Amino acid sequence: MKIELSRDNSSMSLVDQIYFEILERIESRLLQKGALLPSVRKLAKDLNVSVVTVHKAYTRLAKEGYINIYKGKGAYINERYENMKPNREKGGDLSSFDWQQNIEDYIHRAQLVQHLQFSNPIQFATSVIYHKLLPTRFLAETMKLLVDNDPTILARYCETQGDSELREEMQKFLNRVYRLHVPFENMMITSGVQQGIDLVARSFIGPGDVVIMEQPCFTGAIDAMRGRGANILTAPVKQDGICLQTIEEICDRLKPKLIYTNPTFQNPTGTVMSEQNRKTLLEIAEKYGILIVEDDAVGDLYFDDEIPPKPIKYWDRNGHVIYLKGFSKPLSPGCRIATLVASGVVFERLVAAKATADICNPLLTQKAILSFLRSDKMFPHLEKLRIALEVRRDRLKNYFSTHLGDLITYRQPQGGLNVWIELPCKYNAEQLLYKAVEHNVSFLPGSACFVKDPQRNFIRLSFSSVSDKELDEGAERFANLIRSSLK
Amino acid sequence: MKIELSRDNSSMSLVDQIYFEILERIESRLLQKGALLPSVRKLAKDLNVSVVTVHKAYTRLAKEGYINIYKGKGAYINERYENMKPNREKGGDLSSFDWQQNIEDYIHRAQLVQHLQFSNPIQFATSVIYHKLLPTRFLAETMKLLVDNDPTILARYCETQGDSELREEMQKFLNRVYRLHVPFENMMITSGVQQGIDLVARSFIGPGDVVIMEQPCFTGAIDAMRGRGANILTAPVKQDGICLQTIEEICDRLKPKLIYTNPTFQNPTGTVMSEQNRKTLLEIAEKYGILIVEDDAVGDLYFDDEIPPKPIKYWDRNGHVIYLKGFSKPLSPGCRIATLVASGVVFERLVAAKATADICNPLLTQKAILSFLRSDKMFPHLEKLRIALEVRRDRLKNYFSTHLGDLITYRQPQGGLNVWIELPCKYNAEQLLYKAVEHNVSFLPGSACFVKDPQRNFIRLSFSSVSDKELDEGAERFANLIRSSLK
Repeated sequence: MKIELSRDNSSMSLVDQIYFEILERIESRLLQKGALLPSVRKLAKDLNVSVVTVHKAYTRLAKEGYINIYKGKGAYINERYENMKPNREKGGDLSSFDWQQNIEDYIHRAQLVQHLQFSNPIQFATSVIYHKLLPTRFLAETMKLLVDNDPTILARYCETQGDSELREEMQKFLNRVYRLHVPFENMMITSGVQQGIDLVARSFIGPGDVVIMEQPCFTGAIDAMRGRGANILTAPVKQDGICLQTIEEICDRLKPKLIYTNPTFQNPTGTVMSEQNRKTLLEIAEKYGILIVEDDAVGDLYFDDEIPPKPIKYWDRNGHVIYLKGFSKPLSPGCRIATLVASGVVFERLVAAKATADICNPLLTQKAILSFLRSDKMFPHLEKLRIALEVRRDRLKNYFSTHLGDLITYRQPQGGLNVWIELPCKYNAEQLLYKAVEHNVSFLPGSACFVKDPQRNFIRLSFSSVSDKELDEGAERFANLIRSSLK
Repeated sequence: MKIELSRDNSSMSLVDQIYFEILERIESRLLQKGALLPSVRKLAKDLNVSVVTVHKAYTRLAKEGYINIYKGKGAYINERYENMKPNREKGGDLSSFDWQQNIEDYIHRAQLVQHLQFSNPIQFATSVIYHKLLPTRFLAETMKLLVDNDPTILARYCETQGDSELREEMQKFLNRVYRLHVPFENMMITSGVQQGIDLVARSFIGPGDVVIMEQPCFTGAIDAMRGRGANILTAPVKQDGICLQTIEEICDRLKPKLIYTNPTFQNPTGTVMSEQNRKTLLEIAEKYGILIVEDDAVGDLYFDDEIPPKPIKYWDRNGHVIYLKGFSKPLSPGCRIATLVASGVVFERLVAAKATADICNPLLTQKAILSFLRSDKMFPHLEKLRIALEVRRDRLKNYFSTHLGDLITYRQPQGGLNVWIELPCKYNAEQLLYKAVEHNVSFLPGSACFVKDPQRNFIRLSFSSVSDKELDEGAERFANLIRSSLK
């Protein structure tokens, strides 16, 4: 258990940081029932803090029921998830090797959502798109042709940078949809946007490097940066995007290396950064010599015909922006295809990192996506998808306003797959989730989206992954749950 | 450029370490023609060494022609690879953003081989298997059926741990081929063995952590460990595997966290660790509380009916061994499927790391491999493959003994895909490679397989990826080259 304490620039006390780090591991199920925590004395020594500091953190965890402290024996993790069976089966031998508990590791948590997939609930937790809305039949037929025409497609490595035909087609797509001019030589294919973020983290972020992230933020990005030991500072997400004033204040004090942002239909809040703010953010990056990671997972899924501003990459002239465009969500989560766009030596390093991570993506999935992009189907498909998602959003909204009224607060999303719901602040979304699972419906507790100081009264609800029927049923169950819990 | 200097336990001087770190980046093309190195003063300050130390390293690089030093202007990378066009096209704007040169990165090098793929040579550099020897037709037909029966296979995420049916089938396979009993709950599917190694590195290795590796060693493993800032110590590979005495000496002085080994048909040397040494290595790991990463990429590809010893994992009772079994090489490099076997909290952490790395593998490729394993074809296929590779090895051997005689030294490999060739020590394999490429044949210079103190007179030659005709032609060209160069 490697805990990186931030001593200078944190809004959290050392006690709170230790408490929170351990809590995250419990919630990610990295620490499970019966696991022994390091002794107070040992952890204090390892972290170079006083015994009192660790003791306070442990006491708080014990008070809240996360651990049990037995005098003279140590502190053990309590069972928290009795009624939550994760989808994946467990090895029977967990925690049976005591010596393993002493191995210091660098895993803080892992996308909570991955650990909270249940067998058969109505799934509002995962932001993927319902399979019937995706061009799976086309992709399947294409794959059949591909393997028929050239079975050796399965017998070859692809070049690390990804198939050049696919990159050329993506170049055309980005040009057409955003008027973004990027040469395909500066594009690389990655296994989803998640891998793109991870490649950036492993290339440029090391222990103590300052990274600025949105608060709240996409969970997978938090995990990637924390895994590198980054000193993460946050800027709140406002209606027009990440708070630039906070960023400038940080830049005046410190030397951030990287800013991660999800400017269009931000995950989880759904907000859109204004065009002016995009330009200003780029100016800040230029002024201070900072990289921007621009995560564009769903920017082309806008509603009400309101086209969002162009990607920040559009104005980038000096290689500051590493732009990540996902094709998983609108086309095929199962193909795991996204592209990363960057330039200069930064790009070279990212290609080298991909070689170390997994050598290359499979060629077959790349060629299948290529066929779809080359066909005349991409733009009509996106058009159809926008309408389908818009209808779902409205349906949910009507349901909520009829049945929940003022019990919850949320802003109507203008695109994307999620709605970000605020409950009165005394309520705890994680505890609600336990009940929700009993009612066969699930969602993402908002606390998973916070780097630090998690607010526990938020919920991210994805309206994209279920069928229409499940949407209605799930909304009803959700509303019942909220009503009965908030009364 | 993040250089980690080892001050205590290195056999290399600080000057040599700096020299070698920069050289690796040049050879990996991370530093390219015209790139500006940090000033002597700045690097000295960053690394906390004297100006004289950096100056000496730069002078050596300049003397050997890798860099040019211009008084008052700085040190620039020279062109080294004029006649080596890498397979992937280059972005036109490389090095055009000066500010990027100041971003400290954590990429030391990336599998040299990835950067040395040329358009049309006879490819002795990549250890994959010639496509006509692989069951690509079966896999292709299976994929057609799979997408026909259920196109939603492309529209779903798989669970992070990988498809449970595939893991069950792999469990049976490991049991049948090695009598290895591992529950499928303790198996995870990864994107090749490379990702398995990388997941271990990101989970358990951080700056300064001591890792023991074989010397020479699989390049991809070196890159993964170096990317985490590990303090890598090496033990030489002997005829019966990694030198255990060296490992014990290291364990007496330091506290290693992990030993990486490739015990069967070691990449690159082809040696096999004896059964006794496997057991002893495990005992050492148990005694000192160390993890073993056992890379088994090609253990089932043995020749002359000589079955190699069981995997170290076979004797593991306390969760020390993280066992990686590849299915890429014998079945389909394009499917990118391998499995990782581990237990206890170590396994839990590795699953969390996979979620952060890329969420999951595609389901389609997993299901295709599943079909092949379930069919009755796997064992006859392996049998056929062994014979085909054995024939190639013998053909090469005959060619070499007829045409090269005593000019080169090598040990006849008993399995796997490579032969490890030693040239007289005054010859430099990298310089030979330049000439080889002119003669339209390529190989891996052995220096890429060294963690430190690279020996430059070794060559790894893979006899598996070419056709029979190319094998003959390539062997002839290679022999001509060696003869003309060594005279």
